[in-house]
Amino acid sequence: MTVSYTLRVANARFGGFSALLFRWRGSIYKLLYKELLVFLGLYGILSLTYRILLSPEQKRIYAQVARYCNRSADLIPMSFVLGFYVTQVVNRWWAQYRSIPLPDRLMCVVTATVHGDDERGRTLRRTLLRYANLSSVLVLRSVSTRVLRRFPTIEHVVEAGFMSQEEKQKFESLHSDFNKYWVPCVWFTNLAAQARREGRVRDDIAFGLLLEELNQYRGKCSLLFHYDWISFPLVYTQVVTIAVYSFFAFCIIGRQFLEDPKPPLKGQEGPLGDLDLYVPLTTLLQFFFYAGWLKVGTKRPFGLKVSPGEGNQLVSVSLLSV
Amino acid sequence: MTVSYTLRVANARFGGFSALLFRWRGSIYKLLYKELLVFLGLYGILSLTYRILLSPEQKRIYAQVARYCNRSADLIPMSFVLGFYVTQVVNRWWAQYRSIPLPDRLMCVVTATVHGDDERGRTLRRTLLRYANLSSVLVLRSVSTRVLRRFPTIEHVVEAGFMSQEEKQKFESLHSDFNKYWVPCVWFTNLAAQARREGRVRDDIAFGLLLEELNQYRGKCSLLFHYDWISFPLVYTQVVTIAVYSFFAFCIIGRQFLEDPKPPLKGQEGPLGDLDLYVPLTTLLQFFFYAGWLKVGTKRPFGLKVSPGEGNQLVSVSLLSV
Amino acid sequence: MTVSYTLRVANARFGGFSALLFRWRGSIYKLLYKELLVFLGLYGILSLTYRILLSPEQKRIYAQVARYCNRSADLIPMSFVLGFYVTQVVNRWWAQYRSIPLPDRLMCVVTATVHGDDERGRTLRRTLLRYANLSSVLVLRSVSTRVLRRFPTIEHVVEAGFMSQEEKQKFESLHSDFNKYWVPCVWFTNLAAQARREGRVRDDIAFGLLLEELNQYRGKCSLLFHYDWISFPLVYTQVVTIAVYSFFAFCIIGRQFLEDPKPPLKGQEGPLGDLDLYVPLTTLLQFFFYAGWLKVGTKRPFGLKVSPGEGNQLVSVSLLSV
Amino acid sequence: MTVSYTLRVANARFGGFSALLFRWRGSIYKLLYKELLVFLGLYGILSLTYRILLSPEQKRIYAQVARYCNRSADLIPMSFVLGFYVTQVVNRWWAQYRSIPLPDRLMCVVTATVHGDDERGRTLRRTLLRYANLSSVLVLRSVSTRVLRRFPTIEHVVEAGFMSQEEKQKFESLHSDFNKYWVPCVWFTNLAAQARREGRVRDDIAFGLLLEELNQYRGKCSLLFHYDWISFPLVYTQVVTIAVYSFFAFCIIGRQFLEDPKPPLKGQEGPLGDLDLYVPLTTLLQFFFYAGWLKVGTKRPFGLKVSPGEGNQLVSVSLLSV
Amino acid sequence: MTVSYTLRVANARFGGFSALLFRWRGSIYKLLYKELLVFLGLYGILSLTYRILLSPEQKRIYAQVARYCNRSADLIPMSFVLGFYVTQVVNRWWAQYRSIPLPDRLMCVVTATVHGDDERGRTLRRTLLRYANLSSVLVLRSVSTRVLRRFPTIEHVVEAGFMSQEEKQKFESLHSDFNKYWVPCVWFTNLAAQARREGRVRDDIAFGLLLEELNQYRGKCSLLFHYDWISFPLVYTQVVTIAVYSFFAFCIIGRQFLEDPKPPLKGQEGPLGDLDLYVPLTTLLQFFFYAGWLKVGTKRPFGLKVSPGEGNQLVSVSLLSV
Repeated sequence: MTVSYTLRVANARFGGFSALLFRWRGSIYKLLYKELLVFLGLYGILSLTYRILLSPEQKRIYAQVARYCNRSADLIPMSFVLGFYVTQVVNRWWAQYRSIPLPDRLMCVVTATVHGDDERGRTLRRTLLRYANLSSVLVLRSVSTRVLRRFPTIEHVVEAGFMSQEEKQKFESLHSDFNKYWVPCVWFTNLAAQARREGRVRDDIAFGLLLEELNQYRGKCSLLFHYDWISFPLVYTQVVTIAVYSFFAFCIIGRQFLEDPKPPLKGQEGPLGDLDLYVPLTTLLQFFFYAGWLKVGTKRPFGLKVSPGEGNQLVSVSLLSV
Repeated sequence: MTVSYTLRVANARFGGFSALLFRWRGSIYKLLYKELLVFLGLYGILSLTYRILLSPEQKRIYAQVARYCNRSADLIPMSFVLGFYVTQVVNRWWAQYRSIPLPDRLMCVVTATVHGDDERGRTLRRTLLRYANLSSVLVLRSVSTRVLRRFPTIEHVVEAGFMSQEEKQKFESLHSDFNKYWVPCVWFTNLAAQARREGRVRDDIAFGLLLEELNQYRGKCSLLFHYDWISFPLVYTQVVTIAVYSFFAFCIIGRQFLEDPKPPLKGQEGPLGDLDLYVPLTTLLQFFFYAGWLKVGTKRPFGLKVSPGEGNQLVSVSLLSV
Repeated sequence: MTVSYTLRVANARFGGFSALLFRWRGSIYKLLYKELLVFLGLYGILSLTYRILLSPEQKRIYAQVARYCNRSADLIPMSFVLGFYVTQVVNRWWAQYRSIPLPDRLMCVVTATVHGDDERGRTLRRTLLRYANLSSVLVLRSVSTRVLRRFPTIEHVVEAGFMSQEEKQKFESLHSDFNKYWVPCVWFTNLAAQARREGRVRDDIAFGLLLEELNQYRGKCSLLFHYDWISFPLVYTQVVTIAVYSFFAFCIIGRQFLEDPKPPLKGQEGPLGDLDLYVPLTTLLQFFFYAGWLKVGTKRPFGLKVSPGEGNQLVSVSLLSV
Repeated sequence: MTVSYTLRVANARFGGFSALLFRWRGSIYKLLYKELLVFLGLYGILSLTYRILLSPEQKRIYAQVARYCNRSADLIPMSFVLGFYVTQVVNRWWAQYRSIPLPDRLMCVVTATVHGDDERGRTLRRTLLRYANLSSVLVLRSVSTRVLRRFPTIEHVVEAGFMSQEEKQKFESLHSDFNKYWVPCVWFTNLAAQARREGRVRDDIAFGLLLEELNQYRGKCSLLFHYDWISFPLVYTQVVTIAVYSFFAFCIIGRQFLEDPKPPLKGQEGPLGDLDLYVPLTTLLQFFFYAGWLKVGTKRPFGLKVSPGEGNQLVSVSLLSV
Repeated sequence: MTVSYTLRVANARFGGFSALLFRWRGSIYKLLYKELLVFLGLYGILSLTYRILLSPEQKRIYAQVARYCNRSADLIPMSFVLGFYVTQVVNRWWAQYRSIPLPDRLMCVVTATVHGDDERGRTLRRTLLRYANLSSVLVLRSVSTRVLRRFPTIEHVVEAGFMSQEEKQKFESLHSDFNKYWVPCVWFTNLAAQARREGRVRDDIAFGLLLEELNQYRGKCSLLFHYDWISFPLVYTQVVTIAVYSFFAFCIIGRQFLEDPKPPLKGQEGPLGDLDLYVPLTTLLQFFFYAGWLKVGTKRPFGLKVSPGEGNQLVSVSLLSV
């Protein structure tokens, strides 16, 4: 779920940002704590092994391995790979979000063009909007796991009142390998044409406006569907994932504290050795940066848990207010 | 607040830029002076502690810690993290600014399409524009703290003349978990349809134009609302904040002046030691760059204190001139 | 082919990403395994030569060459060159994908504006859509190798029912050095004008809507054709390819394990030498990053194997549902 | 001023680019020569001071300072800061340029829709276009110093024939804190409505077209005005300026030639010392890159001296040709 | 000329890319071979001078100079400067390409809206399209050297049949400092209005559609003209050119093979010296990357040799098919 935190930032003055650092919901800690535990676990096991089990000769060899890993980690072009990937993914996410079909514009046009205060008029308007909503529900089902959980089968869609039983039969009699979200749009067009014939839609221009608005609505459904269908090339995802995984694998080995092979002679001050911190602080920070960056980029629910909530609520809103 | 300073730059010739450096309002100094004082305070305390309190042996250990921190600071990918974040945020800001609904286009169309120089005609035009303005006020209230401060309750909106008491009741009888900015748009549509029936809007094409313009206006309200509702993912904000904070924490420790552990022997010229500057000049510059970059990126009022002023003024402008 | 893997990611929770790493279809392994074998082969041959065939003096010279190659590899601005190229190519790809003409919007408008439940009405609608589909088939033939394989000649297009024999003659009597995808659009316009004269399209506005929609459809065909016609400048492709090839050539030579020229004296512990890994792990990772990045960027089928499947299915969909 | 130099490049073949290097008008040399003289002056003074005035002990201390400055200069993230800033500014500039309202489209529509070859018809068309031009003159006055210099007061606008005396009074009777560029657009609308009533605009569709075109024209005026009103955040400009200034301050101190503290003993060849170039060639190049980059980015006349020339000429063009 | 090479890539499987490396037409080798020869010549002369003419003392001094140049070359921010420049230029190029006015959309609308199978109808349609084509020829003449070479004077345009002698006189009687590409658009409008009066354009909506399409066509002409008129700021071009030139100047001096100043004593193995390659392989690669990158970016014909071919062919296509 996208978590709204702007209000908190808005009121933030001096130091206000630190408050944001300690939120849990939607935060980086919640996102990463499992991976972090695994990472720390592996690091700790290796650290203990090195300190307790290894003989001095083995430690010497381990130092070679660690040095090799450190140099390797530097050769992985993390910023380049992650920067490209995350920019693409975030832009995609926002474009996807903006292509969620909102029924309010259509609602406005239906209200303005389909006349009649009698039952027939109200039914017409409601049915038209129901078709539009049905179309977006059908798309959202294939795009969002949340909507799919709420409407696991077409039967659930019927129960929720988005479809009548006859419509369901008509819908299911049409066979297509693809999502049939466009079927209710055709129904919409037919019903609108009928309303025009009945004189409920008074003139051709209003009818044209209605069709155009539907076309835009439909275009958004289609775009959303294609964004979902055409994934970002798997190869890039694999490259990024391999890069991040191998970077941290190298870190686990290479960022261990290494004992100085040559202890200073007695009575003589040795050179400044490395600091034994036990916890690899810097590496942990890098873990947060890189793994967090990647995780958000690849978490699909991030992009799409957005839609259901909004979808549902906007759907009901539009039905209420006609 | 966005501060207009282009005029000053325009007249700037040789050296003109230096003048910009000494402005206070909207400047980086005003933005950062509190954080800067904290930073300098912490740095100073640590510096004094090191110089006065620590024993030579402790200084040796501190040198290890400082070296560790310095290396850690280098490992934080500041440019990458900040660059991505700030680019995204600034683009968002500008897109948001451009989606502020300006009533002037709508005003133009209403003037041109709703005829009649009598009282009824004038009332119609004014009411239509009032609805449009009301819609943007409702959105701006939820988006801008300034507008919210001016209109803390719906009652204030009524008092300012954007809504009548009956409209308020109608408005409040509609229940929705969301901002109901779209309700006045529905009223607008209904009133426009009525004007069409009365013949005040002479033909279907003018009516279509009116509806289309309203739809665009409404689209902008909706976009503004969604920009506000869907925050930029919290995780990125946290990653950036952790990066900047930890960078400066490392700097406070690692950029201290360290005494040379081995003073030169008498009669022999020692190697060139580090310069003891007392004030960490370079680090302060980095503080300005990175903290300023981040602060502007995350300061919400930056993006949205823009709107109210403009909103109000344009709102009144459009009411005056119908 | 673009491989949909989002569903798997969606369900991925902890560690879920590792599953993605072991997919074969559409994966980086499938993409690169041949190149990888060549790379490893060359590396191995050189490694064996060095270890077995070279005399100590030759090894000394080889060390010089290797050092030179290593420094050279560092001087190649891989991130810069690849980053620019791949960003451009991926953006192009997505723009191209989005310009694939989908007949569904046009279908919707045709359904709504061309009236008549009799045979003539149905024929009209079907013929109009057939022309639109024919236009996109003609473009896709020149853009996608897959579609071309399915329709190697115009005769195949006729057989598939997209074109009648008379239309084929008319089509072939028009001579042009360019793809004649726009010819069916002209037919469409003529037929629509005729339908307007017959009263099948009831009013001018509907007719205008129809023309506008066709124009957009045609605009997409045209855009797709131009994207294909105007390749990304060859020079950039060559620069990138030279960069990647020479980088790996340098790596094959420079990343070999080199024996320490001065073995430690007896009884004295030598300094930490390099680790002899036999397999150049880091270089392999870089191979995956850089070669994978490039390969995806330049693989044309990646961008366009998309279209045929979709094209065909949507084409049949639109014919079924009129 | 934007200087057209493409023709010269077009004819450039081998070595043709060198010719571009020696142009003065609009060139980097003209842009920077004052700053360059200051920079060289300061560098020279410091150089002389070091070489002549300082004692060996002071030179030793200076060497420390210089080393510190050199390291500091390396820590300033010039590419990051400048890259972000200049990209934003250049994109803004181009967007601004594209939002300059050109009256030619409007002219075309007015010609096509407002009929009548008699005096009245011609007056109508001319007045409509005059209003449109007036609107853009009003915007350009507040945006471009050049246009402002040509029309310092509204009286000058009247004299140039863009406004009649009565219109001026009407214009000035309207009070607003903002630029009133939209007032002539309202006049345009009113006059167009009157022309419609008189039958000069024959049908509603033509009238709608006219209004729509005006709305787009007005939208461009509005956009131009807002681009000017909402400056790019001052903080970024300050950050960039501080970065560039402090970078060059560090360079002046740190890039001086330093004498080798330990002259080689007699009879023994010393190690390779630094080269004493007297003129800091590399630093001068960096000065050109960074200061030129920044200066172009911040020079407002660059962006806006464009408009007046074009504005004026297009304005007169459009009046001539109606 | 833009060279289509996608077909070859499409069929490329394993190793297929290497084929692309050996193409000559439109390739990097053709683009750079002259510059390369100059570069190699200078390098060779300097190399011979160093090896043959210089005394050991002079070689010592040369070594100092070379070291200085090497360090200077590293300080030039090539990636930053080139990256920014080339991205901007390539984006401009593609935007320019997309703004080439293609007459096919207009052709489609003219066919659909201007009725009449008699001579008059055909003449009308042809004349309208001729005007449109004339407009684009006039723009392309000022934008593309190729089109200018084909139509050096207006007389040539008349001869090619785009303009009648009377039209030429009318055209030349209008004086303007600017390209008068918009004049045929005005003629188009007038002729279309006449056709409407004659009833050849049957209804207002069709007429509106026609005007709108013309306006878009004209907008593209205008955009193309402005892209050409407003060059990318000269300062950036100069900065980039200076950067690349000075980089290679430094390389010619600094990347020479330098003899080891201290030959190893007899009987003792010297340290690993540099490898004497005679040909500066790495520098050549960098030459290809950077100079090729720049050259493509600044080659104007690259961007605009595109247009004429296409322009001409599409122009004739549209005339053939009306």
